[in-house]
Amino acid sequence: MKKVQRVAQTITEKILSAHAGKEFVEPGELISAKVDVLLANDITAPLAIKEFEKIGVPVFDPAAVVLVPDHFTPNKDIKSAEQAKVVRDFAREHALPHYFEVGRMGIEHCLLPEQGLVGPGDVIIGADSHTCTYGALGAFATGVGSTDLAAAMALGETWFKVPESLKFVYNGELGPWVGGKDLILHTIGDIGVEGALYCAMEFTGPVIENLSMDGRFTMCNMAVEAGAKNGIIAPDAKTEAYVAARARRPYRVYTSDPDAKYKEIYEYDVTGLEPLVAFPHSPDNVRPVSEATHITIDQVVIGSCTNGRLDDLRLAAQVLSGKEVHENVRLIVIPGTQEIYRQALREGLIETFIAAGAAVSTPTCGPCLGGHMGILAKGERAVATTNRNFVGRMGHPESEVYLANPAVAAASAIAGRIASPEEVR
Amino acid sequence: MKKVQRVAQTITEKILSAHAGKEFVEPGELISAKVDVLLANDITAPLAIKEFEKIGVPVFDPAAVVLVPDHFTPNKDIKSAEQAKVVRDFAREHALPHYFEVGRMGIEHCLLPEQGLVGPGDVIIGADSHTCTYGALGAFATGVGSTDLAAAMALGETWFKVPESLKFVYNGELGPWVGGKDLILHTIGDIGVEGALYCAMEFTGPVIENLSMDGRFTMCNMAVEAGAKNGIIAPDAKTEAYVAARARRPYRVYTSDPDAKYKEIYEYDVTGLEPLVAFPHSPDNVRPVSEATHITIDQVVIGSCTNGRLDDLRLAAQVLSGKEVHENVRLIVIPGTQEIYRQALREGLIETFIAAGAAVSTPTCGPCLGGHMGILAKGERAVATTNRNFVGRMGHPESEVYLANPAVAAASAIAGRIASPEEVR
Repeated sequence: MKKVQRVAQTITEKILSAHAGKEFVEPGELISAKVDVLLANDITAPLAIKEFEKIGVPVFDPAAVVLVPDHFTPNKDIKSAEQAKVVRDFAREHALPHYFEVGRMGIEHCLLPEQGLVGPGDVIIGADSHTCTYGALGAFATGVGSTDLAAAMALGETWFKVPESLKFVYNGELGPWVGGKDLILHTIGDIGVEGALYCAMEFTGPVIENLSMDGRFTMCNMAVEAGAKNGIIAPDAKTEAYVAARARRPYRVYTSDPDAKYKEIYEYDVTGLEPLVAFPHSPDNVRPVSEATHITIDQVVIGSCTNGRLDDLRLAAQVLSGKEVHENVRLIVIPGTQEIYRQALREGLIETFIAAGAAVSTPTCGPCLGGHMGILAKGERAVATTNRNFVGRMGHPESEVYLANPAVAAASAIAGRIASPEEVR
Repeated sequence: MKKVQRVAQTITEKILSAHAGKEFVEPGELISAKVDVLLANDITAPLAIKEFEKIGVPVFDPAAVVLVPDHFTPNKDIKSAEQAKVVRDFAREHALPHYFEVGRMGIEHCLLPEQGLVGPGDVIIGADSHTCTYGALGAFATGVGSTDLAAAMALGETWFKVPESLKFVYNGELGPWVGGKDLILHTIGDIGVEGALYCAMEFTGPVIENLSMDGRFTMCNMAVEAGAKNGIIAPDAKTEAYVAARARRPYRVYTSDPDAKYKEIYEYDVTGLEPLVAFPHSPDNVRPVSEATHITIDQVVIGSCTNGRLDDLRLAAQVLSGKEVHENVRLIVIPGTQEIYRQALREGLIETFIAAGAAVSTPTCGPCLGGHMGILAKGERAVATTNRNFVGRMGHPESEVYLANPAVAAASAIAGRIASPEEVR
């Protein structure tokens, strides 16, 4: 009888072991793993489709492929319309059940969890760097190139180098107007944009336990901004409640062994943490909002795969209720999905935004990546709840983006400069 | 004592006489007339501003200049952001009180009447061809080039050749789902896109009396599609009620003398008129909807300066209520202004659109002119409540646009082909 050696593993290692058909995997090991979900959007899917068609085989599992035209839709020009058409035609030709059309869709990383298409224990690859968002459900989720996606669409599996894991433990109590965005900005500010290079970022501790699912999505979403392969949070009762109402497939909950090995363990006491702002031009250029209140602004964007969820809109509406957007500011609010939009309608949040003088857009990634729906001119400054503030990210190379949470973004829209919510209430 | 000869005049001639400081004007006469309102948008204002700055004088009346960045906003790219910035900077520099920022604006031709910035008896020029919309208030309103606008911004007046008038008399009873859009399409279908070249189109008769203000705006809006200099409807109790609640300036009501001279009088009996569809690639290529039901479609746009008003959204929602947009169709709904959006929210119309699977956009001219927010790919077909279906108007040169009223557009979105509202209810 063969005796299997017990090896302590992290949640990331356990998920990868299971998908590689192995008892255990070790950091640095190259593995081939089955994938449960493959995602692409209107920018990346056309490239993947072109490569996939060269292979000349059927899609290994049409239900595993999710296509979401969310970046340049509703189409901003003929080129983007042609791109979207490639995706649409492919979805029809291969009878893909999870193609999401304009008007029935959302920003991919808000949409897939909401639609129950991703769940705990999954391996998910997406031709989009923020695919790591789904780690909030206790899944292994990571961004890949379009060519890798094409191969996986044919084979149902792909290769990975098993990442080392970093453990982040958050202790203490979050103050008012401080949430998942601030936790992840604080972390990236601490370790830097290469601080988790090719590692798994595992978020744990009492603060994470108390954090809403939406806050957890925000944290895992930005793991890639520290260079991580994936972000991940072990499922708990909140996760189960979220997933139980949505899952379309069976799922499996993994947790890290208490004696699992980590490359590094970071402990933070977040008590007294202020809302944070990442200054241009890097997500790790983080300062407390109180040190940013001299920055006048031209635009505010509340939305994106980072902060376009219901919790985010509720926070923004709480700050904006009965207030007016500053005359020098364009406030653009973009609910993450049609379902979020609808719920926001029912709760009166959309009415609050319109009354305050905001433009409310149909779901799109648009402004975050300088795509459309709010591009900056030369010299303009924006506060955005998005994830990246690289040079020219939201438009002109001489424009600037300041990353913040939705409450700070809303307060800044009212003040005409970066402001804390306390200042405008 | 000088005896003034009484000359029978049309409403258009009376307004122009008054603004030229003359007892009467005659068709064909070149006059210089004072202008009450000057309008430009994010496409045309930068050109006008450039020319205006060459003149080197102040704006003759800052309150008379209305600037609305509605075409490529929220900005779709750096170029459009730069254009919008030129307009914004100019408005600030000259302290223009009627600059409308993203989030507090609307499609210009829906916005100006709603905001009480245009009224009966006004002379209004706009660097946009659909400026003729305001004729529905009993004003003389017409599109001009950006250079003419620049000169008028300095001088407060501009030159016109007094147009000959055409009188259109609509008798009978409109059937269900038939409205202003169908009346004007019927008219353009009858006289052709050059049928009113440089003439005033004066819309009269019992059908016009019964038509809502929103229906009247739609009719005057499309006068330019028949080549007209302006479209006009004499103010009545409906107009007065509309204006009384909004006007920011005194206004004066003019009506045509019974014995005024017209180049031509057209009489239509509209009883039994079907909803109409203008086929590609001309607004005069008009057929009854029953002859169009074989046309499959990819997109539907409900909105624009032609049909983005509350009446239009109500009609569309009535058809869409409890229904779903066809899986092959993207339905894009664009309320004309923030105020219309807000009222549509309160009436549950936005909820109806989202529930049906529509993308609801913040106000923009976007798709109508192939600008953004719904551009067509090669070979795609759209039904739109807009005003022009020229080759490539909404995107690719090999795409097609079918013009229709909001009820037909909504029905078509459900059916996946052009359909009458009766078919889908």
